Amino acid sequence: MSEMAIGMVGLGVMGRNLSLNIEEKGFSVAAWDAWPAPVDSFVAAAAGKQIRGFHELADFVKALRKPRRIIMLVKAGEVVDKTIAALLPLLEPGDLLVDAGNEYYKNTERRTVELAKSKIRYFGMGVSGGEEGARHGPSMMPGGDPEGYHELEPILVKIAAQVPDGPCVTYIGPGGSGHYVKMVHNGIEYGDMQLIAEAYDVLKTLGGLDNEELAAVFEGWNKAELESYLIEITAQILRAKDPEGKGFLVDHILDATAQKGTGKWTVQEAAEISAPVPTISTSVDARAISFARDARVRASKLLPGPLPGPVPGIDKAALIADVRAALYAAKACSYAQGMNLLRLASDTHQWDIKLGEMARIWQGGCIIRAKFLSRIKAAYDRDAKLENLLLDASFVAELGARQDGWRRVVALAAQAGLPLLTTSASLGYYDMIRRERLPANLTQAQRDFFGAHTYRRLDGTGADIHTDWSSLA
Amino acid sequence: MSEMAIGMVGLGVMGRNLSLNIEEKGFSVAAWDAWPAPVDSFVAAAAGKQIRGFHELADFVKALRKPRRIIMLVKAGEVVDKTIAALLPLLEPGDLLVDAGNEYYKNTERRTVELAKSKIRYFGMGVSGGEEGARHGPSMMPGGDPEGYHELEPILVKIAAQVPDGPCVTYIGPGGSGHYVKMVHNGIEYGDMQLIAEAYDVLKTLGGLDNEELAAVFEGWNKAELESYLIEITAQILRAKDPEGKGFLVDHILDATAQKGTGKWTVQEAAEISAPVPTISTSVDARAISFARDARVRASKLLPGPLPGPVPGIDKAALIADVRAALYAAKACSYAQGMNLLRLASDTHQWDIKLGEMARIWQGGCIIRAKFLSRIKAAYDRDAKLENLLLDASFVAELGARQDGWRRVVALAAQAGLPLLTTSASLGYYDMIRRERLPANLTQAQRDFFGAHTYRRLDGTGADIHTDWSSLA
Repeated sequence: MSEMAIGMVGLGVMGRNLSLNIEEKGFSVAAWDAWPAPVDSFVAAAAGKQIRGFHELADFVKALRKPRRIIMLVKAGEVVDKTIAALLPLLEPGDLLVDAGNEYYKNTERRTVELAKSKIRYFGMGVSGGEEGARHGPSMMPGGDPEGYHELEPILVKIAAQVPDGPCVTYIGPGGSGHYVKMVHNGIEYGDMQLIAEAYDVLKTLGGLDNEELAAVFEGWNKAELESYLIEITAQILRAKDPEGKGFLVDHILDATAQKGTGKWTVQEAAEISAPVPTISTSVDARAISFARDARVRASKLLPGPLPGPVPGIDKAALIADVRAALYAAKACSYAQGMNLLRLASDTHQWDIKLGEMARIWQGGCIIRAKFLSRIKAAYDRDAKLENLLLDASFVAELGARQDGWRRVVALAAQAGLPLLTTSASLGYYDMIRRERLPANLTQAQRDFFGAHTYRRLDGTGADIHTDWSSLA
Repeated sequence: MSEMAIGMVGLGVMGRNLSLNIEEKGFSVAAWDAWPAPVDSFVAAAAGKQIRGFHELADFVKALRKPRRIIMLVKAGEVVDKTIAALLPLLEPGDLLVDAGNEYYKNTERRTVELAKSKIRYFGMGVSGGEEGARHGPSMMPGGDPEGYHELEPILVKIAAQVPDGPCVTYIGPGGSGHYVKMVHNGIEYGDMQLIAEAYDVLKTLGGLDNEELAAVFEGWNKAELESYLIEITAQILRAKDPEGKGFLVDHILDATAQKGTGKWTVQEAAEISAPVPTISTSVDARAISFARDARVRASKLLPGPLPGPVPGIDKAALIADVRAALYAAKACSYAQGMNLLRLASDTHQWDIKLGEMARIWQGGCIIRAKFLSRIKAAYDRDAKLENLLLDASFVAELGARQDGWRRVVALAAQAGLPLLTTSASLGYYDMIRRERLPANLTQAQRDFFGAHTYRRLDGTGADIHTDWSSLA
């Protein structure tokens, strides 16, 4: 009777949908949840399918073919630890256990080490695409034991989103690398979303475009170089009428954005290894500032500055073209920063992450899926060791063609009092990484002046020099 | 013979200088180091002073009046743990132990709990001012047991920097609060330094000012609202001639800035409690980008964009005035973000930190000492619960008067290809916190579209609404 191909622990919407996806691809699924009701309702809904529900964890484990393959889709953190504690006595050496939640990678690293003592092959797998992705094909980022991956691969390649470059899944690397990559994916997503919000703000507020015009702009953008899921849904959102009959729904949504932690982790981990991510960190800041809405409303009545509004006589078509250029260029910076963070993290942890493969598996299923990613993949195909994505010849050409518009948008908004925190931080990043000489010589001199932190000379004479500056002045 | 007033553990330059400062104020000092040589050389140098050196830790401890007061100035991290382990068997309940290094506050919190079991009163004390400050009067941020503080206070108030508002020391709060405040102080310092570097860059590169002109500008600024230690030393640095005879020394310093950890921690802790700190985080990013100098030099030959240089026909005096306005306004944002971070951290940890007192004790001794801090203190004197520093009437007026210049500088640099990562992130922060309506409505709609994260309406009808967007579009 030990014949079920795979086990699913946790029957929330993600667990149910991923189970249905797996079953549809020809694999039988044993399903268990800590609570009986979700098991019963899922079994009822899945009548006639190769899905069996279990109330007893021991029965669930016994029903699985060996080596057992079990996916957990439970709340990250403590619940994962509790689930593992309950499962462990029932498992045998060689069994595979996959955490498919949005877990912090250090927790995954810790569990990998602990479970290795019992010869359980543990995986942390990032899954992107939300409910729809889980049901019809997500992008998946599994990290863990390289040998064990071959036991999972036949299932994963079938349930993943399929794009011309193949299924949106690949072996990421050992330890917590799968969850780390998912974290960075989400960090890039934060950047993408904030850049779109800023583009929308400029067009609406300074350009005076109404929702119909805005929707048409985003629809147009979605047919060319900006083609992506987030641009597509932006157009749909802008077209949506208020169910309460007051014009467009988007205009009635409270401007306070919540967040769930992966953006925060990205900022913290980037700081840990000194990877600059201003596009991503400012987008996390932007959510925090928006969320403190009451404080903002009070401050808006006190703090002086221009009130952003339609710019008299503005050439709408030219503004739209500039904003499109700015959005593309800044978005490229978001990906360049994310990829650089992955490169540095991979070096630090010896994960050997293939950056081009990350771009490949993000092409379908996930929130940041975009035509753009095929260009990133192509860049790493040309040079797997590319130091910074923007140095690829295709991006050099694209950013060269777009920066005048980008600069005009940043300058216009600064003068108009419209905040473009992330678009302008991206421009600052770009101008900084391409600057041969930065004013950091002054900063190093200051550090040496007050803290004897020493400096080096451009002409290479001496090393770690300390100067008594006040005696020289 | 147990009559020495205080013990110093660790005789590096900070420990020696702080000991000399303490002795000069009339307190006898017992001095110990893990290595004999620093003890001997310090004792020799301090001949005739009330300073006794010890090779044996037990003798050192025995020589101290009870309850014993011991300051550690050793390398943060592991060495502190080793030092505590060596001291602990020699101490008695009621003794006071102070870590005056740049320790991560969570380590201090851990040690406070551990040492409380032995009834040792533990303190984490941030000390700013470098070697000079330690010798002649630092700014000190002691956190720990409130009762125990009274045993330390008589010494601390005498050795601290003295300003018209009193000695630059105050009881910060319990646990790791002292080290936390020092961390944020350093984060603000990172922001200050990067803003000065950007101001220097604009004046030098776009304004075409030479070092003599630049030095004169900073000297002038140091006589008015920007008066501060960092502006003062900037002027001195700009005047310093190259000892190797090649013009000015600042022009020969390698433009790669190192960092030691407190900026990184500030970014990580701010992310942890969702405190927006874009001025500080971009200044940390700027150091990382500058440090990767070889990559930048390579990228400078590939990435397209304007080469920043003197702007033809620019009005130098007007540019200097604009840069001065931008520097002041952005600096205010750095402090507003740091103070807000302290406010939120104090709430989170229940530390009851007095923000006005922080501004008071930073007025002297430390790296960020500035005339400016008396205005911050005055703002919190007027309203101790001030939600954001910039909402104080004096800052409202000052930012109102300066923002046109600030906006012109950001716009000019964006067009010229000169990176003002931190100055422009500060402007973005300012325009964001004063904006009644942000485009976060679109972001929330996107989150609800792809992840069913729900939203609220501006008109207050319903709560946590989820919409099937594609059916509405």
